[in-house]
This record gives sequence, structure tokens and C-alpha cells, in this order.
Amino acid sequence: MYFIDGLECGRYDRRVLAEFTRRVLAEFTKGGMAAVTITLSFWEDALETMDAIAAWNDLARANSDLVTIARTAEDIVAAADSGRTAVVLGSQNSSPVNDRLGFVELFTDMGLRVMQLTYNNQNAIGGSCYEPHDSGVSRFGREVIAEMNRVGMLVDLSHVGERTSFDAIKASDHPLAITHANPRSLYDHPRNKSDDLLRALAAGGGVLGLATYNNICGPYAQSPQAWCDMVARTVDLIGIDAVAIGTDLGQNSGPDRLEWMRKGKWTRSEQPGASLPGTPAPPQEWLRSTLQFPDIAAALRESGRFNEAEIEAITGGNWLRLYRQVFGS
Amino acid sequence: MYFIDGLECGRYDRRVLAEFTRRVLAEFTKGGMAAVTITLSFWEDALETMDAIAAWNDLARANSDLVTIARTAEDIVAAADSGRTAVVLGSQNSSPVNDRLGFVELFTDMGLRVMQLTYNNQNAIGGSCYEPHDSGVSRFGREVIAEMNRVGMLVDLSHVGERTSFDAIKASDHPLAITHANPRSLYDHPRNKSDDLLRALAAGGGVLGLATYNNICGPYAQSPQAWCDMVARTVDLIGIDAVAIGTDLGQNSGPDRLEWMRKGKWTRSEQPGASLPGTPAPPQEWLRSTLQFPDIAAALRESGRFNEAEIEAITGGNWLRLYRQVFGS
Repeated sequence: MYFIDGLECGRYDRRVLAEFTRRVLAEFTKGGMAAVTITLSFWEDALETMDAIAAWNDLARANSDLVTIARTAEDIVAAADSGRTAVVLGSQNSSPVNDRLGFVELFTDMGLRVMQLTYNNQNAIGGSCYEPHDSGVSRFGREVIAEMNRVGMLVDLSHVGERTSFDAIKASDHPLAITHANPRSLYDHPRNKSDDLLRALAAGGGVLGLATYNNICGPYAQSPQAWCDMVARTVDLIGIDAVAIGTDLGQNSGPDRLEWMRKGKWTRSEQPGASLPGTPAPPQEWLRSTLQFPDIAAALRESGRFNEAEIEAITGGNWLRLYRQVFGS
Repeated sequence: MYFIDGLECGRYDRRVLAEFTRRVLAEFTKGGMAAVTITLSFWEDALETMDAIAAWNDLARANSDLVTIARTAEDIVAAADSGRTAVVLGSQNSSPVNDRLGFVELFTDMGLRVMQLTYNNQNAIGGSCYEPHDSGVSRFGREVIAEMNRVGMLVDLSHVGERTSFDAIKASDHPLAITHANPRSLYDHPRNKSDDLLRALAAGGGVLGLATYNNICGPYAQSPQAWCDMVARTVDLIGIDAVAIGTDLGQNSGPDRLEWMRKGKWTRSEQPGASLPGTPAPPQEWLRSTLQFPDIAAALRESGRFNEAEIEAITGGNWLRLYRQVFGS
């Protein structure tokens, strides 16, 4: 069984060393994780993202008994087979490419394997789930998606607007991911996705990582049992091959990072992020670190709704298949 | 026989498309070149150099019947065996790394294989051959050389000051290159190198690429015969294993590039570059393009000073050995 968390937050660079400590990396391996896809950037541009990659390269070398940076699905299997966790470098924005098509390939060369088309704001590629009007995929966006297909970078639509997401699925020759979101029909939130969109994702071989982040789970965050009920309902909706996990966990996260995530460089005004007024979400208490990831597998088992093969698919197998298909070798 | 030119000038980016045209790339293959190491940057920083790499990636794809970008010596052999020329990405300055140690690895990932520590000016790593006082290798410079050793990037000392060059040879675990310069004992010019330095380079397994650039050849530029005499004298000085060719040819080069090379971003005043007052150099007429590279082999043969194995070593074999040793696989 290869446990994979399709998305974790956290920000690591020279200035913010606290988030991925050796303790957190040790929790990856103690949790039995084959892979964790981490966040290199929310708003960071090319140089800032390169600083983050350089810092991760150093971090992985200094903790090579615990982690290794993976570029292929085979790297993940090899890491797991050696008792270590593969870190997959992801970005929650396309800001690293600095609006240059050629940089998609260069960042692939540097190890970036998963890139969200937009974070919370519209950019040159398309619209986000929080914009009043979603443009759909722009002309440049079509070029970027084709280039991501060519070089084997996984397209992530988690914070992307609905129209841009539909356009991206249509434009992409490869299956895509929604690494961390939930069905809007189960919990109505702008970050969550319509049934139609999720069906289109699944029809193309894509994968949805269900999040444990309380603000987008609503009542399903209250207990592992409630959350497993959301998993079962989502499997009923889009099939067992399309459902995985992207916790959206943030490690050692403080108010500084939250402010960076929400305000970035684009505003001085207060921003609620996913914590919307009128949708109070109970705190999620049962998954505080990656160490508890196996508890999800146990809860899925206890729910009696899945057989072992299905639990394997949800807890990592589906990500591994998608990564193998998209990343190439 | 694998012909390799250890250094050619020229600047290719979105704004300057004229230098590496399809005609120039076709001359590489018609000249029977296994590899040509080109110049990505003189003063360009990280982003500008990434623009140049992205442009080269596009150029190589659009002309894949003629060239391929090589990362290893094996890539060069494979290119030559398929009748194509391997382009080795080089920089004549360490400006791409933006004074960040971690960027050495990132640029290696992006394909940069040869990097000169300084161009014409002092930088954070060391002093250039034109500075009034050469600092030697700085503290950061030692870190960069160790990192270049670790990731397999070739250290080039062509425009580097003598003291910095001696320091670098001492600091480096790998053999180094002077890709394009001549012995100062044969032609006295600040860009040329003392016998002691060349001996130190050769003692460590390094290679000197003799240049055909008139300003640093003096009388040896006048004819292929004169130039071959310089080759023979240099072989006498440092041995057959240490002598190769780095023409310093510039393709389709105009006054704009010359001004960029000399003035970069650092001065508004006129700069002579290698064209020093009081050292008039005759124009070099017999090697105007890479197409004529085989003429050098023919002239070496006609000189009667070398056997075939020696001609092979000078015209490419020594570069291939050094590249194999340093680049890794």
C-alpha cells in the first residue's frame, strides 16, 4: 500500500525555516507515506520559487534518511521501498513561470511536477474560484496546458474557477488533478466543485483529492467517520478510480503564512480566504499531522463501505497511477 | 574523429534572433562538428539566462535534424554518430546564479554545463583578467567551485584573473578548462595566460582551448600555418593532453553584440574589450565560420608536427575526455 497525500501546504524558504522541520519530515515516514506533494509557491515568481526549490534540495539532502525529491512515479515506489517518503514538488500557482511559456520546461527540469493554473486570483492563464467572472482559459493558458502535457507536468485545478476548469479539461491531452477540494453538492463552498465538473474530470481519467481542511468540509470535518461518509458519497458520484486524498494540511503554520496565502502581494485589505462569513466550519481535530494519515485508512476500513483494493486506490493508488501516466519516466 | 569547438560566442534570445540562424547550425554539421559549446550569457542574470535557455530549447527543437542540446559526453557521441552536432550550453559569466549557491544545481538541471567564473569584471566569486587588482577566489567563490564540482559543471577560467585562476585550480577537485585563450609567453595580452598558470591547469588534467580570435593571437592569427605553429609551441609547453580548440568565433555578430559584450550593464563609457591600444592585431581571415573547422585539422596535418592521434586529441578528443570526466552521466 502506497500512501500518498496529493497536497500539503507549508512554505519553505530561507526566510521561513519553521514549517518543514526534521520532525515534520519524520512524520511523513512514520505515517508510512510513499509520497507527499508539497507547496513551493502560492504567489512566488520564478526567482522566489527557485529559492524554494534550492532550499528543498538542501533540506532533502540534509534529511536523505527520511525523504527524497521524486520526479517520476518510479522514484516514489523506490522511496517507499527504502522506507522513505518521496517529496513531489508542487506549486499552487503558475506564478513560477513568470508568464513565459519556455519556463514550464525549465521548471520541470528543476523538479516541479504539479502546478495549479491559478491560486485565488485571476492570472494570465485563467480565472480562479473566487473571481466574480471567470474568463475561462486564456490564449496563453492553452499554450501552457499544451506545454505541461508535453513535458509531463500535472495540471491542478483545485483553486481554479469552474469555467477555466472545464476549458482546461477540454484542452488537455492528459488527465488532470484537483488535488485538494470537495464536491460542492456535499458542501456548498466556492472552493468546492460542481458534480458536472467532477464528472468531466473523472471521465478524462483525472483524480480528485478530497481535503480534510475544515473550511471546505463543513460537517464532514467533524469526525473521521463523517469524512469517510464524504469519501463514500464522492466515490458514488465519480467512481473509485477518481477519488484520492489531498489533505491541504499545513505544518507548523502560523498567522504569517496565513496572511501570505491570503494577501500575497496583491492587496493590503483583509482577505478571508476559504474562511467565508456565514459558513462557520467546525475545527477539524482528528487529522493534525501527516503522522495520522494511516488513521484515514483505518477509518475507511471501519466504515465498511470499501474493500481493500478500494482503500488502496483512495489512499495512494490513484495518485500513483495518475503520476505514472502524466510525469513520464 | 570528434571535432569540438570549446567556445563560440554569439547571443541568442528573443530579442536577438540573428546570431544562431539555421544556416549557422547547418555549418556546425557541415563542418563535421560533434559539439560546439555556445555562450548563453555574458552579463545576463538568472532570468535573462533562463530566457536564453528557453530560446535554445525551442531553437534546438525546431532544428532537431541538425542539432541537439547535450548534457553528457555520451550525448555528444550520440549526436555525432547520428550526423548532428551537440550544442553544449555554456556561460561566460557566473551572473546566471544571481549570487545564490543553490542556483548552480538548478542551472545544471536546466542544462548549463560550462561556466566561467568571471567575465571581464570582478564579481562576487573573484577577479577578472582586466581588473587592476585580482582578489583571488572569494569565500563565496570557494563554495561555488565546490558546488560546480558536486553537480558536474565545468569551471572555465578564460577571462578570469591569474590569481583567481590559480586559487580556483587549487580549490577544485575536478580538472578545469580555459576554453578560449592563448599562452601569454607567445603573445603578450591580458586575456592570455602565463606559462605557470597553464602548467598548473595541465597538471590537474585541465584543458586549454586555443583561440583563433585575432585580438589575442597577434601574429599567430595571420595564417593557418602561423596558428598551427602556436598550437605546436603550446603542446611543447603543456603537453598534448592539455591542448584543444576554443575559437571564440562569433556568428553573424554586429556592433550591438560587441557593445553588449564590452559595456554590459556596468558602464556607459567606451570599452575596448580585448582590442587594446598599442597592440594592433591583424584581422583573422581564414576562419570565418565553423564550416571551416576541418581546415584547422588539415592545417595541423600539413604542418607535419603531429600524428593522427594528436590531431584527434587537439581537434576534439581532449574536450570529450574532459567533458566525460566532469559532466558525469
